[in-house]
Amino acid sequence: MPIGPIPTAIKVDFSKPATEQPGFHNRWHPDIPFATWTKPGEVFHIECFDWTGGQVKNDDCADDIRNLKTDGVHVLSGPIGIEGAEPGDVLVVEIQDIQPFPSQPWGYTGVLDKDAGPSLLDKYYPEAIKAIWDFDGIFATSRHIPHVKFPGLIHPGILGTMPSPELLAKWNTREKALYDHHIEIKSELQVARLPLENGVYAGQSISPEAFAKVAKEGARTIPPREHGGNADIKNLSRGSKAYLPVFVKGAGLSVGDLHFSQGDGEISFCGAIEMAGVITFKCSIIKNGVKDFAMNTPMFLPGPVEAHYGPSRYLTFEGISVDEDGKQHFLDAHVAFRGACLQLIEYFKQFGYSGEQIYLLLSAAPVQAHIASIVDIPNSCTTIGIPADIFDFDIMPKEGKIEPMDMGSCAYLSKK
Amino acid sequence: MPIGPIPTAIKVDFSKPATEQPGFHNRWHPDIPFATWTKPGEVFHIECFDWTGGQVKNDDCADDIRNLKTDGVHVLSGPIGIEGAEPGDVLVVEIQDIQPFPSQPWGYTGVLDKDAGPSLLDKYYPEAIKAIWDFDGIFATSRHIPHVKFPGLIHPGILGTMPSPELLAKWNTREKALYDHHIEIKSELQVARLPLENGVYAGQSISPEAFAKVAKEGARTIPPREHGGNADIKNLSRGSKAYLPVFVKGAGLSVGDLHFSQGDGEISFCGAIEMAGVITFKCSIIKNGVKDFAMNTPMFLPGPVEAHYGPSRYLTFEGISVDEDGKQHFLDAHVAFRGACLQLIEYFKQFGYSGEQIYLLLSAAPVQAHIASIVDIPNSCTTIGIPADIFDFDIMPKEGKIEPMDMGSCAYLSKK
Amino acid sequence: MPIGPIPTAIKVDFSKPATEQPGFHNRWHPDIPFATWTKPGEVFHIECFDWTGGQVKNDDCADDIRNLKTDGVHVLSGPIGIEGAEPGDVLVVEIQDIQPFPSQPWGYTGVLDKDAGPSLLDKYYPEAIKAIWDFDGIFATSRHIPHVKFPGLIHPGILGTMPSPELLAKWNTREKALYDHHIEIKSELQVARLPLENGVYAGQSISPEAFAKVAKEGARTIPPREHGGNADIKNLSRGSKAYLPVFVKGAGLSVGDLHFSQGDGEISFCGAIEMAGVITFKCSIIKNGVKDFAMNTPMFLPGPVEAHYGPSRYLTFEGISVDEDGKQHFLDAHVAFRGACLQLIEYFKQFGYSGEQIYLLLSAAPVQAHIASIVDIPNSCTTIGIPADIFDFDIMPKEGKIEPMDMGSCAYLSKK
Amino acid sequence: MPIGPIPTAIKVDFSKPATEQPGFHNRWHPDIPFATWTKPGEVFHIECFDWTGGQVKNDDCADDIRNLKTDGVHVLSGPIGIEGAEPGDVLVVEIQDIQPFPSQPWGYTGVLDKDAGPSLLDKYYPEAIKAIWDFDGIFATSRHIPHVKFPGLIHPGILGTMPSPELLAKWNTREKALYDHHIEIKSELQVARLPLENGVYAGQSISPEAFAKVAKEGARTIPPREHGGNADIKNLSRGSKAYLPVFVKGAGLSVGDLHFSQGDGEISFCGAIEMAGVITFKCSIIKNGVKDFAMNTPMFLPGPVEAHYGPSRYLTFEGISVDEDGKQHFLDAHVAFRGACLQLIEYFKQFGYSGEQIYLLLSAAPVQAHIASIVDIPNSCTTIGIPADIFDFDIMPKEGKIEPMDMGSCAYLSKK
Repeated sequence: MPIGPIPTAIKVDFSKPATEQPGFHNRWHPDIPFATWTKPGEVFHIECFDWTGGQVKNDDCADDIRNLKTDGVHVLSGPIGIEGAEPGDVLVVEIQDIQPFPSQPWGYTGVLDKDAGPSLLDKYYPEAIKAIWDFDGIFATSRHIPHVKFPGLIHPGILGTMPSPELLAKWNTREKALYDHHIEIKSELQVARLPLENGVYAGQSISPEAFAKVAKEGARTIPPREHGGNADIKNLSRGSKAYLPVFVKGAGLSVGDLHFSQGDGEISFCGAIEMAGVITFKCSIIKNGVKDFAMNTPMFLPGPVEAHYGPSRYLTFEGISVDEDGKQHFLDAHVAFRGACLQLIEYFKQFGYSGEQIYLLLSAAPVQAHIASIVDIPNSCTTIGIPADIFDFDIMPKEGKIEPMDMGSCAYLSKK
Repeated sequence: MPIGPIPTAIKVDFSKPATEQPGFHNRWHPDIPFATWTKPGEVFHIECFDWTGGQVKNDDCADDIRNLKTDGVHVLSGPIGIEGAEPGDVLVVEIQDIQPFPSQPWGYTGVLDKDAGPSLLDKYYPEAIKAIWDFDGIFATSRHIPHVKFPGLIHPGILGTMPSPELLAKWNTREKALYDHHIEIKSELQVARLPLENGVYAGQSISPEAFAKVAKEGARTIPPREHGGNADIKNLSRGSKAYLPVFVKGAGLSVGDLHFSQGDGEISFCGAIEMAGVITFKCSIIKNGVKDFAMNTPMFLPGPVEAHYGPSRYLTFEGISVDEDGKQHFLDAHVAFRGACLQLIEYFKQFGYSGEQIYLLLSAAPVQAHIASIVDIPNSCTTIGIPADIFDFDIMPKEGKIEPMDMGSCAYLSKK
Repeated sequence: MPIGPIPTAIKVDFSKPATEQPGFHNRWHPDIPFATWTKPGEVFHIECFDWTGGQVKNDDCADDIRNLKTDGVHVLSGPIGIEGAEPGDVLVVEIQDIQPFPSQPWGYTGVLDKDAGPSLLDKYYPEAIKAIWDFDGIFATSRHIPHVKFPGLIHPGILGTMPSPELLAKWNTREKALYDHHIEIKSELQVARLPLENGVYAGQSISPEAFAKVAKEGARTIPPREHGGNADIKNLSRGSKAYLPVFVKGAGLSVGDLHFSQGDGEISFCGAIEMAGVITFKCSIIKNGVKDFAMNTPMFLPGPVEAHYGPSRYLTFEGISVDEDGKQHFLDAHVAFRGACLQLIEYFKQFGYSGEQIYLLLSAAPVQAHIASIVDIPNSCTTIGIPADIFDFDIMPKEGKIEPMDMGSCAYLSKK
Repeated sequence: MPIGPIPTAIKVDFSKPATEQPGFHNRWHPDIPFATWTKPGEVFHIECFDWTGGQVKNDDCADDIRNLKTDGVHVLSGPIGIEGAEPGDVLVVEIQDIQPFPSQPWGYTGVLDKDAGPSLLDKYYPEAIKAIWDFDGIFATSRHIPHVKFPGLIHPGILGTMPSPELLAKWNTREKALYDHHIEIKSELQVARLPLENGVYAGQSISPEAFAKVAKEGARTIPPREHGGNADIKNLSRGSKAYLPVFVKGAGLSVGDLHFSQGDGEISFCGAIEMAGVITFKCSIIKNGVKDFAMNTPMFLPGPVEAHYGPSRYLTFEGISVDEDGKQHFLDAHVAFRGACLQLIEYFKQFGYSGEQIYLLLSAAPVQAHIASIVDIPNSCTTIGIPADIFDFDIMPKEGKIEPMDMGSCAYLSKK
């Protein structure tokens, strides 16, 4: 039974950079010293920066998004050692609560400049844009995307354990191979973010030798991997449980990239409603769980508490594995999902929204993206459903030209 | 207001082959004569064969699955002309009801022989297998997959309008290009099913000239395309509405491939719970809807009535864009989804099920497959959640080796 | 496993009165001969008249409601003997399906003349009125209550086992005592319907002696009692299970009073959407369940499949234990519920509906009536919530006088 | 847009009695001075004592419940003036958040001594008992009721506006009439709590004259009334809106009696999970709403976010208007609900729980109590459904004697 207030194991000080504070890091590496330790069953808060460490402002200009320094992201809180956890165990992480800081009742959704980070529709939206969201109790509203209001399902975009040296080596090897292949075929795609010495931060207590190693080998935090990481699972919220494999003694749990809400796919990359906040954990250990559950990747149970919309209130769009140039792809769910998103955007532009506004909205609102079929060669079918009840007007299809409304504007670059 | 019984516009006669009856066809082509006509607002039944036209038996041997003749699938009911529908309109199809035939209260899930049709995990399950499902009121149970029971969410796997000649040409061109490319790169993948004269059926009233054209050009029914088709959307059930673009005068609605239940992805190809049955439609027309909605692919609204499981009752597995050989792919949601399925299968094998049983179950049960993230290079994250409440034992992760139960067997080939 | 079509154990013949057909009765009495027998595990259909045996017409006049002969209601199908059931067992009744007759795709909601049957608001609505509902697939709509559409949750208003002689005697004694007390205090309330020889029907095979006994002692079917009976539980629908105590050898299951949909409380008495139809049962027996479950009244499990509306889409009204004359009652949930209904009716009258229309709607639509508090002396608080999504206009409270619409009219008596 | 932290308009100081602090009161009266003022649209916190002002301890003995001083309850926070609100307006209260104090992560459910406060089953449970609940993130568990865990749906039991002198007089008159009637008929029932000078508290700034008036006339806070008050609506939680009629200039909003969770009916009186905590409001005004909505009692919209259990996971019990002595009552929903509760308690005693434990559990857990039928003379049917998923064992009815478990004990009086 908790006696008195819950302790805060890692604290954020907004008055100085994350990289000057203990308790944070931005690479995955087994040599990063643990910032704190907990016992199974203990309840504790962890404070988190937003993923950028505070680079984005609550204003009406997207210049800060364009100027984002991405070498030092994501700013993660941790690693947290859990006493008794050993390789082969499963770490059970209960998310007891997760909230924004009362002093920062807002978040943002952005699209990065295409060169800084690819997003699903960067072909059409190559320049930085953003929308600010205000937290109105449990709801989010945005002056940049009017006529929309929905409750948040707050979750961490990133939750993971520290890799073992062997696992880290495996990651680096396979991602390098992909990278090299694309260099070889002269692809211009940015396909992977390999270890990068620039911007590395690994906490205050690391030795120079260890730091050098982390800088050289540390895995970037962008992709999800076998340990969890940037999975961006939108309903890993209050009351949920994540089951993470343990690769190092003490597990080394880290967390960050908090989202007030996110649509399936987080399609605009700096999508979701990015925020700083506080997460409350209780951890336990299932001994030998990796073997007993034949586990290669994490499992989880969503929380019992979420917003429910009637099933027939989701207006749903389809995409198939044919791209917008008419090219046929083979069972490509990515192309199919992209098509469904484009279709949805065109539909909502009829109401007066700009494509940019809906692109941002799709990343932030609780849209459901399902893989409907994945075997009907050559097309996959994916669907994206958007709840009608988040709009304060009627979005349902009706006969007659839709009368567009004045929908204002999202934030653009200052030169515009 | 309907007066008296609802008319049945297309009837199935199980005593003779589908290809000897009016009202059915198995290619998409604008020259296939309409089998029947309806007016907007009329309510009518359409009877449907199962997708194979009755080739699969309710027994304990998978030989019929191996011997499936696939040239003549899917057996579709239609085309149905809707008076007043013209190219550019949107056809609104309300599914008023959909039921199995009372005389055939069963269905099946199969995995085809790898050579006959690729399935998501054909690398591991290359031979034909099947499971028979009995319909116990609204529930399905299987003697081949014990300890499982769930209500069906009956839906048509295929629902589509007839393509115009131009659209059909576009389909054939792009699919041929993909096919040729794979020939060129000496890929052994079966990437597309091009028009095939063998097995074509286009109803009883077609002229020899038109038949020859359909045989030569008619699009296969396997993939979903811009007109709908084999989208395999699992919640297009009673009370739902599909919004389909119209490409030819009268629209030419066809339907088939009924499923008693399906998991997202229909991963075993002849997945879902395949059945024959009766669907009840009411159609209406939105004039010029294609332009007014900026529509390229269908939209739909799920029905209001479905089974609900508590959100925290979905045990959920993750997959990333790394295949089981450890190779890194680029944002590949297909690879990620495949990994999540493999992970789920391994977990459930601990309870005593065979991999084959769970492979079949995943295709048939109401599992939810979400695209969690699609921008975190190089990995996508997809999730697959399975409701705990469909099992009559506790599936939740717990410490300790799981005690396997006697789970019987699915149906295998006779030589086994 | 069912082989071939499901047998129909009791059939309706609409060409002659229910009282001339086998398989029906309208009193509860142990001497009513069983109409049919079933074995545990068998699946069978039972056809049912509407509760009145077909006295109400699909027209626009409420005269048939005023002229209802109520001595012979409810027309029940049964009794059905279940082999092996003995007193003290629990009969488990699975409702596998329940549907209207395809030839009668409509139902009705009525308010009886005050003298014929008391309804919750008979003080305000003393004369017979009715509304006809058309079944549009899974949905109901009414020409008498426009701008409303909702899916049915079809259920039997009455489902019960036959009482033992002892139980029947107990019922008759306690209801007589209440009746006598009200005579004594010169109350004008119609408080109970005692056994009545007029109108009794007990099937075709009963002996004159037994008939005389049933006529004299048979319990009326209006109230719910320990055996089930007229419980009017709105979500006892497809996939649900009722657990009924067994009082006589063979149990003697009877069913009737089918509803396409009903609001909590069925406030207009001939409320709900009354219909004829077919119910499909599968029964099993739990030996000695009455003792093992300490059972006095039935238990049930709702089905898994129903319409879901978002929780915040229920506009909810409160009532307290003060009647409309301002009189304070003591923790009276009936008075409180009545107040909540009156409040809801006044609100909706602002939109142009008549009070009669909303009174009928409240009985028929899926409204939720909860007991919020029952201990806060002297007031209970009950709530009634109505889903906004069943209306095709916005019902939410907003500033400004509501602009009434043309809402047509329900059916009145012909003299009006 | 909120800038910086949300202000706290009323603060709790746990180091001294509520009656020595500004911002609290325990009667409803128009002369109680407003504790604070807010403008429409402002967001603010209100801190609240538990309903007793801190009289109950987190221990294993029910003596504190027996010794409760009830003259001074409920301790309410307020009244809050809302600028611009005038009689006839509707005050819209948005509950933006509601949380326990982090320093007090626990609550309690109690049954008062029968003489101190009647509860639904005081005939069987006349002595004080209690259970302590620990808040484990969003979940509650109790060492006094093992094997149970559920998420809270935190809400204020009491939310109301200040009555006008006329309305207050009406309350006092009608409640006195009920009281006098029961004196007259020599009833021993405690039917109402009339104004009582003992224990009155009306804030720090009241004049002696006003205080005397409040003491003499002030309405007790126990019943819900036309202004809201102790309605105990269990889903008036985060994201919900209450629409309250305004009777005095500035409205005079007060709040208290916070519950971490409550079952429909709050049957044990000091039921629910009583707690101290912080509620966050945003108010707005609908001018003339009382007339435009024909409003006599409050309306509300539940929040969109709550725990969802599958509908078929609610094991449901029925009650009818026959009391446990076999006496027939007339359409008495109170008697029916009481019977359903007794039936449920007996069922769960088979698992090893004491009746006291389940009595407390029914008040605290999210059970659903519906009025199924209220017109089937002479019986009402009410149902109570309890979600199976809050137990960590299988509660479903099965054949065979249930094996009781060791269920520990709730807290009893010390003499036991």
